[in-house]
Amino acid sequence: MSNTRIGIVGYGNLGKGVEAGLKQSSDLELAGIFSRRQPEQLETTSPAYHMDDLLGFKDSIDVLILCGGSQKDIPVQGPELAKTFNTVDTYDNHNEIPVHFAKLDQVARENDTVAVISTGWDPGLFSLNRLIAESILPKGETYTFWGPGLSQGHSDAVRRVAGVKNAVQYTVPKEELVDAVKDKQSIEYNKLDAHKRMVYLVLEEDADESKVRETIKTMPDYFEGYETEIHVIDQETFDKEHAGMPHGGTVMRQGKTTDDHTAIYQFGLDLDSNPEFTAAVAIAYARAAGKLAREKQYGAKTVFDIAPGYLSPKSGAQLRKELL
Amino acid sequence: MSNTRIGIVGYGNLGKGVEAGLKQSSDLELAGIFSRRQPEQLETTSPAYHMDDLLGFKDSIDVLILCGGSQKDIPVQGPELAKTFNTVDTYDNHNEIPVHFAKLDQVARENDTVAVISTGWDPGLFSLNRLIAESILPKGETYTFWGPGLSQGHSDAVRRVAGVKNAVQYTVPKEELVDAVKDKQSIEYNKLDAHKRMVYLVLEEDADESKVRETIKTMPDYFEGYETEIHVIDQETFDKEHAGMPHGGTVMRQGKTTDDHTAIYQFGLDLDSNPEFTAAVAIAYARAAGKLAREKQYGAKTVFDIAPGYLSPKSGAQLRKELL
Ligand SMILES: NC(=O)c1ccc[n+]([C@@H]2O[C@H](COP(=O)([O-])OP(=O)(O)OC[C@H]3O[C@@H](n4cnc5c(N)ncnc54)[C@H](OP(=O)(O)O)[C@@H]3O)[C@@H](O)[C@H]2O)c1
Ligand SMILES: NC(=O)c1ccc[n+]([C@@H]2O[C@H](COP(=O)([O-])OP(=O)(O)OC[C@H]3O[C@@H](n4cnc5c(N)ncnc54)[C@H](OP(=O)(O)O)[C@@H]3O)[C@@H](O)[C@H]2O)c1
Repeated sequence: MSNTRIGIVGYGNLGKGVEAGLKQSSDLELAGIFSRRQPEQLETTSPAYHMDDLLGFKDSIDVLILCGGSQKDIPVQGPELAKTFNTVDTYDNHNEIPVHFAKLDQVARENDTVAVISTGWDPGLFSLNRLIAESILPKGETYTFWGPGLSQGHSDAVRRVAGVKNAVQYTVPKEELVDAVKDKQSIEYNKLDAHKRMVYLVLEEDADESKVRETIKTMPDYFEGYETEIHVIDQETFDKEHAGMPHGGTVMRQGKTTDDHTAIYQFGLDLDSNPEFTAAVAIAYARAAGKLAREKQYGAKTVFDIAPGYLSPKSGAQLRKELL
Repeated sequence: MSNTRIGIVGYGNLGKGVEAGLKQSSDLELAGIFSRRQPEQLETTSPAYHMDDLLGFKDSIDVLILCGGSQKDIPVQGPELAKTFNTVDTYDNHNEIPVHFAKLDQVARENDTVAVISTGWDPGLFSLNRLIAESILPKGETYTFWGPGLSQGHSDAVRRVAGVKNAVQYTVPKEELVDAVKDKQSIEYNKLDAHKRMVYLVLEEDADESKVRETIKTMPDYFEGYETEIHVIDQETFDKEHAGMPHGGTVMRQGKTTDDHTAIYQFGLDLDSNPEFTAAVAIAYARAAGKLAREKQYGAKTVFDIAPGYLSPKSGAQLRKELL
């Protein structure tokens, strides 16, 4: 079978992750990167084009991976591009997923395309595990813990505080709660109390440290109500230790198989690079999208709708022999 | 939609687990337990019948869960019963899975039935995670650790040693190896060195303890070559602490998203009752088998072939809203 040809739409962190990740799969190949910026502006050696030229690639691209932002890019680009291409996105605006699905499902069905939405890890693999755990252990409770991981939005918010030169914010689940769930204890869980926020920042020379701390800790929506730790560090340490985009987390379910017997179902990720791993998941689902399109299984799909075997380049027989 | 009616074939540990587990799902109902023994012999208040009467239930059972042993029962019962019924099994003879699949696939296709094979947790959920992890992280290494958990076969082997009155054997993964994988270190893994075996036994009154220990430690296939710990305990302690059938384990993949960045993918189970959890998985796949049969998607299937949404009683829209 010939390779599945992938187009990358949007060249930010995720787009770069897809570009790198595609090199690991010999059944997939990069057809081109498409950006709203001029291609010469992009720092890449891969073939790069302006978005305006994308339609010309109708017959030479099998699947587009949409790497734009979930807030503003995907809601616009998704329905538009699904008219012509099979698409995969990592849309993570949880509340809007049903609307996003409905829109793409209509466009994809009308145009005989496949649109796989909300892949990645949350939504994505975490959702998959919430579903499987709940289906197998109907009597129980599911817990999601995020981190330790870099939060882009919170880092931006801290950087906007007067007196702050540089900052990152990590979300960290409270270890004692995670351990209690693993230990089959029952816990009181709410997202806010289950996580703390750790800030590492570099001050401007003339900054008032105590005022900076106070402003951060009382910032509504972002830090207020959370346990927040603030560490002031120097620029050198910042550059050395806080340049990456680590993330991860855990989905756990405590279920009762009978009144006397508990089962703990646990899924965890520990990622040096959040965008690279998100890209890796999107790539596997792009492989699946290619297969679904060849089978004419058109419409919008989520991770819930796709049999896991579609994610692999291996045949069914090979999978049964090697991995079952 | 009316309930999916489930028949249980074989009333051992797994059969009892399915009987108990079905009470947790209001969309499924128990149609009957079928045994090769006389129904009066079974200690149950559920409707129980002799296997010879099973064919009479052709129209009142939607899916059979085959709870016989993988060594002798399933290879015979599976192909025979798939002629008439949709079936789910937990067949765990890994080497023979391709043959088992081929046989059932032929029977199921010829008779318009669905046969889901090798559900449970290994094979089953562990296989699913080996597949997903490898598909997402093509550059990497997957490790499976089993236990801490009771091994029925090894417990039986110890009980057959002269001088042993009662015994259980637990397989325990070496913590330092599991931690090293989580910690992104590279390890040398082979199944044998990665696990140790812990035996708890009660001696007969006149037994020669050192001879018993020696016989166990040097038992070929079972203990020879393994790190084995033997604990001699009294009957009271045995009854109190070793009556359950706990099990579990971990599937982990260390992958490189790029040369500099590692991702750890981890799936773990900690089960008070191995048969009850195995039953819980089989039940969710029985729900899936019922749906597949209604869609006329006939043939043999494995956990790789079934979209996760089929496992849930919830609708696609509900799943997207609540769990994605
Ligand atoms: N489901 C999950 O688990 C998961 C996990 C992580 C992230 N995500 C999603 O992935 C989305 C993309 O994340 P990201 O980190 O890749 O966002 P990003 O770096 O901000 O990139 C988003 C878009 O902004 C444009 N852009 C990037 N760098 C630019 C620059 N220097 N100047 C001007 N424009 C630039 C690019 O589009 P153009 O090339 O067209 O200019 C790019 O596609 C997020 O919105 C999030 O929703 C999902
Ligand atoms: N995939 C996985 O993760 C997984 C995990 C655990 C187990 N398993 C599989 O599940 C299979 C069944 O395990 P199990 O623990 O339920 O085995 P089991 O208790 O030995 O039962 C096997 C069969 O033996 C018969 N039997 C049970 N108790 C009996 C008794 N007191 N006297 C005479 N016959 C009796 C029953 O058939 P009748 O009622 O017809 O007599 C029963 O179906 C195993 O072989 C294993 O392969 C799979």
